[in-house]
Amino acid sequence: MRSSAMRDLMAITARPEVISLAGGLPDTSTFPSESFAAQMTRIAHESSAEALQYGPTEGFEETKACIVEVMAAEDMAPDPDDLIVTTGGQQAIDLITKTLVNPGDPVICEAPTYPGAVPTFCSYEADVRQVTTDDDGMRIDELGELLAVLAREGRRPKFIYSVPSFQNPSGVTLSDERRRRLVELAREHEVLIVEDNPYGLLRYDGDPRATLYSLDGGDYVLYLGTLSKILSPGIRIGWVAAPPPVLEKIGLGKQAADLCTSTLAQYFVREYFGEGRWREYIADLVEIYRSRRDAMLDALERHFPEQSVWTRPDGGLFVWATLPDYIDTTDLLAKALRENVAFVPGRAAYVDGRGGSSMRLNFSSSGEEQLREGIRRIGNVVAEQVALYETITGEHRTEPQPDREVEPGGGEIVPMPKRR
Amino acid sequence: MRSSAMRDLMAITARPEVISLAGGLPDTSTFPSESFAAQMTRIAHESSAEALQYGPTEGFEETKACIVEVMAAEDMAPDPDDLIVTTGGQQAIDLITKTLVNPGDPVICEAPTYPGAVPTFCSYEADVRQVTTDDDGMRIDELGELLAVLAREGRRPKFIYSVPSFQNPSGVTLSDERRRRLVELAREHEVLIVEDNPYGLLRYDGDPRATLYSLDGGDYVLYLGTLSKILSPGIRIGWVAAPPPVLEKIGLGKQAADLCTSTLAQYFVREYFGEGRWREYIADLVEIYRSRRDAMLDALERHFPEQSVWTRPDGGLFVWATLPDYIDTTDLLAKALRENVAFVPGRAAYVDGRGGSSMRLNFSSSGEEQLREGIRRIGNVVAEQVALYETITGEHRTEPQPDREVEPGGGEIVPMPKRR
Repeated sequence: MRSSAMRDLMAITARPEVISLAGGLPDTSTFPSESFAAQMTRIAHESSAEALQYGPTEGFEETKACIVEVMAAEDMAPDPDDLIVTTGGQQAIDLITKTLVNPGDPVICEAPTYPGAVPTFCSYEADVRQVTTDDDGMRIDELGELLAVLAREGRRPKFIYSVPSFQNPSGVTLSDERRRRLVELAREHEVLIVEDNPYGLLRYDGDPRATLYSLDGGDYVLYLGTLSKILSPGIRIGWVAAPPPVLEKIGLGKQAADLCTSTLAQYFVREYFGEGRWREYIADLVEIYRSRRDAMLDALERHFPEQSVWTRPDGGLFVWATLPDYIDTTDLLAKALRENVAFVPGRAAYVDGRGGSSMRLNFSSSGEEQLREGIRRIGNVVAEQVALYETITGEHRTEPQPDREVEPGGGEIVPMPKRR
Repeated sequence: MRSSAMRDLMAITARPEVISLAGGLPDTSTFPSESFAAQMTRIAHESSAEALQYGPTEGFEETKACIVEVMAAEDMAPDPDDLIVTTGGQQAIDLITKTLVNPGDPVICEAPTYPGAVPTFCSYEADVRQVTTDDDGMRIDELGELLAVLAREGRRPKFIYSVPSFQNPSGVTLSDERRRRLVELAREHEVLIVEDNPYGLLRYDGDPRATLYSLDGGDYVLYLGTLSKILSPGIRIGWVAAPPPVLEKIGLGKQAADLCTSTLAQYFVREYFGEGRWREYIADLVEIYRSRRDAMLDALERHFPEQSVWTRPDGGLFVWATLPDYIDTTDLLAKALRENVAFVPGRAAYVDGRGGSSMRLNFSSSGEEQLREGIRRIGNVVAEQVALYETITGEHRTEPQPDREVEPGGGEIVPMPKRR
């Protein structure tokens, strides 16, 4: 998502007539403006000079106390000294990669993976290996084979990057069994896991899953969190929980990168959490997003041709749809934009140009009617492509492409079983 | 300043009993809290959802309009499309280095240079060459020789990094004649200049000097600005002005680093500049800082032994003092901390351990009485060292070490003529 072309896409989708299912934006319109005003007025009257001043590189203790609360809500209990506050979750990914990766070092991630991680991994010249995902998340059997292959070559990946819950972009969640096996594998191979969990508290169905961090106890798992999806992305507050030797290096990288995270933003967080209603706000978001997810799934059922499949996420912000492989979603996007609707083409989630017939669809930042209309418009341009293909070839395929055999770590387009 | 040891130093100096002349903190206590409250209340009531949302990677147009105003105050007229908003000035340095420098590439900077740039340049494995400065700033004759030497080796530096006005850490300002020659040299050798100008508007004596950016017209000069010293470092707002091809690459780096600069902070900037009193606030700061600088210079005169020399800056935040070369300021700091006073040892401003008998003294973040007391305490520990040395050696040196001949680009401890 974060190539230059994607930046242009984001500019186009900012036009009011465009229904954008492309971004990863939470809905900030429900945040109570009176509460915002009251918090800022308190800061202005009680600590204006401090809020405008530099802060410690690792973040304020008060911010860390809020982070401890958020992690406790998913049954984690980090030592505040194991935390560093970052300029959003993206900086956490950047600093970890900068700290751990030398050019050519293997890094393992899911296929597809978070589109914003791709340019970061590539900018440090990591040798990115993607492991296939299915409806239960990353395929741990394939991961095991990949680790074995690398071990035989005398190579050890610097880390395994995973978004285990309501993954960006696929929306799938790693099963409990696979979580346990992932943590075991990391220990066996002495490989770090980077668990990126922006959406864990945005669950609409089912029971919470244990985080990798809590399963592992924080020995091999570096944990990345953010307030972007449960409070505000505009304040740019994220964090890393990591063992002291790694954290020390990340801290030095943070100093060189931007000295410290915004004090103003951290003071806002302190005031917001001080009001004690942050879980209620998340509960409100969960209600809103659940309805939107349902609206999107319903619209997909109505408007997408039968040759397509998609995921049914239990939480988070995204659905991942895969079309017949003769449709290229990058080309499709140009047509969709002419109909004033946008999505993220699947290629953005791979390092090697695969994902060409998939798309990421966001359901958090549009109202239900907009979502239905957006999916209807995309469905129309897809239907045109399907009809065109069938006219040209005389073929009428009713099923999507089956999963193909791939080399371990070679990655593959995510094979999403049909669920309609 | 930004090594791990320096981070510990910053933690120690946060203790209330310590007079810290170590940081580079502006005085944010004079910022009118009523104005702050009013701005934030407006944001809350008029644009709460937008202020909490993601923003464009390159920054909002409204923020760029404020930046254009600030640059116009120093007679620059950038195209807003040539600007990218960064998470403070530090991120600007980081992104430029990340964008332009491959391991082993030469980068030229002043000797001493901004202590926060040293770890950044080193983290990208630049081959850092430091050019001696004197009371008129970087010695352009030496720079010319260094460029010629590198050219003979078939090497071209990726950029020349300079803080031409009220330099951090030395406080000296590049003369008009040297500014012209620096820009000419850059054109001749087709080398970029990175002009870092955080303090340009904080001038206490004399007439403004033309920026390198305005002398060059923006062809070879990348310009770095920040609101940290004229509004607030806690909002983390800086910027780069650069030609489009470079800016495009910096933008991609920015996306990978932290997606976008805090929207909340940018909205605050918009509201603050909208009130139209930002130049009055700077005028207030100038009055305060001028008196503090004078207090520090007066205290140095009273309390530092005659074997020491220091600069007399016309603006900015720092005085650079150099002691007899048998005094190691890193060791001296430990003694000073026992007297509850802190400074930055000079070595932090060099890549190779020189600067050992110098120190950076900040006068912006302490009141006049504190400054006098802080300098008195440092003067006492220096005097003890001088007395000890004279007792042991029987020597009584009244003059600091003369300037030594150095290889071009080898750098040297800044030879500050005695001015008392």
